[in-house]
Amino acid sequence: MTDDEAMAVALEEAASAAAAGDVPVGAVVLGAEGQLLSRGRNERELLGDPTAHAEVLAVRRAASALGSWRLAGTTVVVTLEPCPMCAGALVAARVARVVFGAPDPKAGACGSLYNLCADPRLNHEVSVTAGLQARACGEVLTTFFASRRLR
Amino acid sequence: MTDDEAMAVALEEAASAAAAGDVPVGAVVLGAEGQLLSRGRNERELLGDPTAHAEVLAVRRAASALGSWRLAGTTVVVTLEPCPMCAGALVAARVARVVFGAPDPKAGACGSLYNLCADPRLNHEVSVTAGLQARACGEVLTTFFASRRLR
Repeated sequence: MTDDEAMAVALEEAASAAAAGDVPVGAVVLGAEGQLLSRGRNERELLGDPTAHAEVLAVRRAASALGSWRLAGTTVVVTLEPCPMCAGALVAARVARVVFGAPDPKAGACGSLYNLCADPRLNHEVSVTAGLQARACGEVLTTFFASRRLR
Repeated sequence: MTDDEAMAVALEEAASAAAAGDVPVGAVVLGAEGQLLSRGRNERELLGDPTAHAEVLAVRRAASALGSWRLAGTTVVVTLEPCPMCAGALVAARVARVVFGAPDPKAGACGSLYNLCADPRLNHEVSVTAGLQARACGEVLTTFFASRRLR
């Protein structure tokens, strides 16, 4: 699966999150051969779990699928720039690469406020690709927040 | 329960982690009245989950106990300075205060490498108290790593 195909799946996940009343962010994890290991969407409200961001859920499921907490060689494709918790999770899981869509100037930790993925003091670095399908990824968020303001 | 009493529980959790072969870190979450809401220990190896750090597990359980992802008014007491993922989780969960024991110069994100808990650009700040029972908290780690090197 290409990064673009993975982002299409992540966008489907984001749409499902919105339908459940959660901020629409979706993520997938690809294995070293590009195979789809897992998918996740923000389920903070649905689960009542503050750590249930799309990336955390997808990373946990990928570890379960691989039978190891070390996600060596994997790529995480996510619609929104990861927050500090999620960027830290990518480092903790030894993810090789992260590809995100829309930047997050308020909480982004892969280049906006921080770049936790590129800190040689930490014991692992994650390669960052920003802006894949950024417009579509941003629109799902702006549409969601606009619809909530209208209620 | 006082912070010192909570740290004693966190140290019990750390000891249990070590017994299971996981790096010994333990955490508890106290409610606004000082009541014990949850406890957790590092279970990364046991669960094969890269996000299963003590703080993340304790925070998830506290949210479950409270029936809300917002842990307003809570205190997290943890034996080791939180890493970026865990510090980010404290911010995401709106934890009021974190008390840690041993500093972590290699990955600490509550004062050592970063202070993600005190960044006015993020939408929440967490009050940090460092060094509670730091010696005991550090010793459980040094003993663990020394015993592994001897194998």
